[in-house]
Amino acid sequence: MNSSPTDVLISEVGPRDGLQSIKTVMSTSDKQKWIDALYKAGVSEIEVASFVPPKLLPQMADAAEVVRYAKTLTGLTVMALVPNLKGAIAAIEAGVHKLTIPVSASAAHSMANVRKTREEMVDEVRQIVQYRNDWAPLVKVEAGISTAFGCTLQGLVSEDEVIWLAEAVTTAGADESGLSDTTGYANPVQIKRLFKRLKEAIGNKAGAAHLHNTRGLGLANCLAAYEVGVTSFDSSLGGLGGCPYAPGASGNVVTEDLVFMFEAMGIKTGINLDLLFQAREPLQSGVPHETLYGMVPEAGVPKGFEAATK
Amino acid sequence: MNSSPTDVLISEVGPRDGLQSIKTVMSTSDKQKWIDALYKAGVSEIEVASFVPPKLLPQMADAAEVVRYAKTLTGLTVMALVPNLKGAIAAIEAGVHKLTIPVSASAAHSMANVRKTREEMVDEVRQIVQYRNDWAPLVKVEAGISTAFGCTLQGLVSEDEVIWLAEAVTTAGADESGLSDTTGYANPVQIKRLFKRLKEAIGNKAGAAHLHNTRGLGLANCLAAYEVGVTSFDSSLGGLGGCPYAPGASGNVVTEDLVFMFEAMGIKTGINLDLLFQAREPLQSGVPHETLYGMVPEAGVPKGFEAATK
Repeated sequence: MNSSPTDVLISEVGPRDGLQSIKTVMSTSDKQKWIDALYKAGVSEIEVASFVPPKLLPQMADAAEVVRYAKTLTGLTVMALVPNLKGAIAAIEAGVHKLTIPVSASAAHSMANVRKTREEMVDEVRQIVQYRNDWAPLVKVEAGISTAFGCTLQGLVSEDEVIWLAEAVTTAGADESGLSDTTGYANPVQIKRLFKRLKEAIGNKAGAAHLHNTRGLGLANCLAAYEVGVTSFDSSLGGLGGCPYAPGASGNVVTEDLVFMFEAMGIKTGINLDLLFQAREPLQSGVPHETLYGMVPEAGVPKGFEAATK
Repeated sequence: MNSSPTDVLISEVGPRDGLQSIKTVMSTSDKQKWIDALYKAGVSEIEVASFVPPKLLPQMADAAEVVRYAKTLTGLTVMALVPNLKGAIAAIEAGVHKLTIPVSASAAHSMANVRKTREEMVDEVRQIVQYRNDWAPLVKVEAGISTAFGCTLQGLVSEDEVIWLAEAVTTAGADESGLSDTTGYANPVQIKRLFKRLKEAIGNKAGAAHLHNTRGLGLANCLAAYEVGVTSFDSSLGGLGGCPYAPGASGNVVTEDLVFMFEAMGIKTGINLDLLFQAREPLQSGVPHETLYGMVPEAGVPKGFEAATK
């Protein structure tokens, strides 16, 4: 994989966010082949699984095995999503480098997603951080503020409450807190305003932009976030994914198109586009009945195109 | 239709760019119903036809009739594309308010598209302007620089040559000159750089951004153009369209998604989104076998959404 410095970090969330939103259960060996291909393309951070009860998400039943496999890939940051302390303990035991905890800014979505109030989730973050401090001090903890730009259940979400929550989770010990447009509601003006406020509120603990393309604004919103200083972006190969608890909120930003946009702009992602396109093959083989999205894989790169990452 | 001032002008090109790129010939009465619906939604400028030999584009054989109909809609700016003086004379006779002449910055594309060199096209613009001055001084003449961001035939297009051409056509008398990403090659950095240079070179004669979504960057590129002061945007309802002479270059920016982006950002388009979505019905009825694109019509506007245009 590419080891030269990059300008932005593309964090691939497909093996977690993508797979958990579809019914097909991808086999462990297919997940490994897909993660291998992403790694070979230069992807340096992958959210490989979520640690939740297998009854709830059978797609993630092999989370520990997938984490252990991903850890054999030198230099790769292996992330997992955990909704609670129990999941965090399992993820740490499996050996993840980084945990991400979704904390919803929408009171309604929080109850629907994890059956906890926002305050209870902040307390969960505090307990996870305490456990991490005691047992695995090198593991990073991220708390992503979901439904930060609006909620399909309650509609508008107060920006003050988003910032309050980001402050609360970092005060509770999270190393960073990013913002997620779980529902695909965000627009570029809102993106700029809220990421600026996030930076003002929590400084260099301000984390990734996790944006969806539900209304076609995914890349425009990534551009807007980049323009106010965000350098870490979540996306999903083939656009697989979304949140099963936010009706109609399918569609992560497509990794291939996002990487193309940045590389075309002269911004290094560290990812090789040809190899990234090739990573669609093991993904499609593993979930043969799912539709993969992505405009650039279909249209090809422009004639004469030169990527920023060499 | 809405008559309060708008912040941006959305120029609908579907009846010309959209229809001329598909094989189906839409009937004149279906075109009228579609134009009616666009007008009712608040669209204030429509490129309704191109004046070219019917043998070449049978879809446009009724251009004069469509122009005459569109002119009955009070306040609507009726545009037509013309590739040469002959087309311009026919369009002016039909009564258009505004002509648009495509002038390709790519030497290869210019020959393929109109079988003329770029210098010959500048001369064509000069003759059209002269005819306009003599016979229809109120008609506006726009010369759009196509393949301004790259060409599927020759690859890279020199930015100096793009600016030289924009200066040449305005010196030849065109009232304005915009830039077209005919091939869907543009990226936001290139968009900003080239539209800034355009403004520096030709001042307030700098015209519309005509951008395609071939590689998914359509809205990001519109955002980038807006951020450097562009306020006039071409787009196509349902994303119908493209250039039949630039292989693989399908996909105008989708009007519905573009209007949604601006309205969500608090930027007035003068267009009512609900009525705009309704305008898809006569379009689809008129070309029943064509696929319409658009993310917002499918996902709906966010819960609690408020448009800037009231």
